[in-house]
Amino acid sequence: MKVNGTPTRTIWQAADGQAVEIIDQTKLPHALEIVRLTGLAEAAHAISAMLVRGAPLIGATAAYGMWLAMREDASDSGLSIAHDTLYATRPTAVNLRWALDAARARLSTLTPNDRVDAALALAQEICEEDVAINQGIGTSGLPIIEAIAARKADGQPVNILTHCNAGWLATVDWGTATAPIYMAHDAGIPVHVWVDETRPRNQGASLTAWELGNHGVPHTVIVDNAGGHYMQHGMVDMVITGTDRTTAAGDVCNKIGTYLKALAAKDNSVPFYVGLPSPTIDWTIEDGVRDVPIEERSADEVKHMTGRLDTGDIATVLITPEDSPAANPAFDVTPARLVTGLITERGIAEPSVEGLLSLFPERRAA
Amino acid sequence: MKVNGTPTRTIWQAADGQAVEIIDQTKLPHALEIVRLTGLAEAAHAISAMLVRGAPLIGATAAYGMWLAMREDASDSGLSIAHDTLYATRPTAVNLRWALDAARARLSTLTPNDRVDAALALAQEICEEDVAINQGIGTSGLPIIEAIAARKADGQPVNILTHCNAGWLATVDWGTATAPIYMAHDAGIPVHVWVDETRPRNQGASLTAWELGNHGVPHTVIVDNAGGHYMQHGMVDMVITGTDRTTAAGDVCNKIGTYLKALAAKDNSVPFYVGLPSPTIDWTIEDGVRDVPIEERSADEVKHMTGRLDTGDIATVLITPEDSPAANPAFDVTPARLVTGLITERGIAEPSVEGLLSLFPERRAA
Repeated sequence: MKVNGTPTRTIWQAADGQAVEIIDQTKLPHALEIVRLTGLAEAAHAISAMLVRGAPLIGATAAYGMWLAMREDASDSGLSIAHDTLYATRPTAVNLRWALDAARARLSTLTPNDRVDAALALAQEICEEDVAINQGIGTSGLPIIEAIAARKADGQPVNILTHCNAGWLATVDWGTATAPIYMAHDAGIPVHVWVDETRPRNQGASLTAWELGNHGVPHTVIVDNAGGHYMQHGMVDMVITGTDRTTAAGDVCNKIGTYLKALAAKDNSVPFYVGLPSPTIDWTIEDGVRDVPIEERSADEVKHMTGRLDTGDIATVLITPEDSPAANPAFDVTPARLVTGLITERGIAEPSVEGLLSLFPERRAA
Repeated sequence: MKVNGTPTRTIWQAADGQAVEIIDQTKLPHALEIVRLTGLAEAAHAISAMLVRGAPLIGATAAYGMWLAMREDASDSGLSIAHDTLYATRPTAVNLRWALDAARARLSTLTPNDRVDAALALAQEICEEDVAINQGIGTSGLPIIEAIAARKADGQPVNILTHCNAGWLATVDWGTATAPIYMAHDAGIPVHVWVDETRPRNQGASLTAWELGNHGVPHTVIVDNAGGHYMQHGMVDMVITGTDRTTAAGDVCNKIGTYLKALAAKDNSVPFYVGLPSPTIDWTIEDGVRDVPIEERSADEVKHMTGRLDTGDIATVLITPEDSPAANPAFDVTPARLVTGLITERGIAEPSVEGLLSLFPERRAA
């Protein structure tokens, strides 16, 4: 998507062919800093220190990290060290493991001499595949926005609420929840996005608002408390969120607070959609509330807030009593009964076992 | 309630009888500062700069402000100036207007000589009346908590979720939503409170957490996004919130985000109660979503966050892109159908016209 008018991805091979470049997302929204990664250690740090985040982008960075590592040491032990070093950066990230295992499997069959080029090719493949999936979600979801726009008075925007950042910054390009929005905007359909700030890590306020603003998409930041009020007053036409993991029955595990928005959408007959790349479907479970373990993150994320001082410096402030405990569940589960449709790269699925299998028949009795 | 073990109110006549003292709530939770108000100007500033907040406390401060003003100038013009000066501090606060009109009505019938003592007496009356109402809410609500505790295994706490600050800091003492909680705690019933931080102004994280901690009530601060998740997993036994305005039919206007918690409570069969002092019932309207105008506050409250730096200094940081617009509706309306009961000083009312009239029969065909 565009940054200052220039089409930009979240990760790319440097122009001189000797490194990988990424956007340091810890600096957003206050500064756009491009970081050059030249070796395994820098790639590992970029993931562990969350310069990159979002499951697809983490996977892509790991794949490029394997390329950087092979340039340093393409031996069998170098391959093993690279895999394990990158895997340890964020061990619960599914795409990370998947990308690393794919790289090891492919590279281990090759002689060290051939590993550098093969690793680069694989990283590029993984990136293109992610872009293709997101474009597919965009193509699948665009007609929903077109249909709402067609019912509106001329020039009235389609008001779309989103939660967290399932935008291009979480992927290589387009984003999952945002792909239909960008496609609608680029097609000249007037859209306006209500951006949930998404406490405690504020991915909406800092990342989604930044990327929408840079691409020129009209948007308004709101606190996570406000969406229900706007739905009660007809000011939200649809909700689109991303998902970290969706069960075979269509229960959607996503950033904490998604469930509350889905309840409000249901209560006000606002359609609630999920941008769902098929690799995040967990075909092994159905009941998300019962079976998806929810990561508990540090209380510090709740008790503190980071932002920019008037001086331009970045600072972190304490916002609770020092002694008050805090709890920080990272995700919640939205039951399938609250979901209008799952927007996948193959089309829109009803949130049910049958709905998903009809789009992914190869999973039937697999 | 207690602060450092000492029973404390939010406002009181100074020990020397020459001033009024308040807690500067803008300094909480990071510092406890008592401010001495000696005249009209200081009382007006305390209200307009929000050193005191919460409708009942604003009313009480205004009444004490009339006393301080009469000590300076008890003439008819002094009375008029005092009323108008205090009224202008926060013109939309209902209790403010009510307290000031009551003071003017009573004092204007007296000679200037008698006005100082009468103003003091009225301020004290208003404070005692507020305390009595909140104690009444506590007495009405306590049996609900007792009943839940009776069903728990020995020593297991009753988990209560609250939103915003409807605590003693918003009133003279006890609070509205918190009165039943403090009474249960004081009676030895184990309670634990989930404190919604309550963006954008963070009254939960800064005020409710502070007052519960000081009184010794176990609590945990959570982001506003988290409550639904805890309800899905049986970790919330009941919700109690306050209300800014409740319609004759039981629709509850309260801090933005209350509606989302009520939806989650309904979806998980968690009882949702409202601590309702009867003066905040608006007997003139029934449909809250349609008829309660919602105040739109400054976008700066959403875009910025204030807290304590490591240095101990208080600082404000920007948390969104500088150019992103933000919207800030201050309240939402929870329809009566989502409310289990309205805990008033006269008992628990069903959230309906008939339910409220049965407790307040003097309003019937009034």
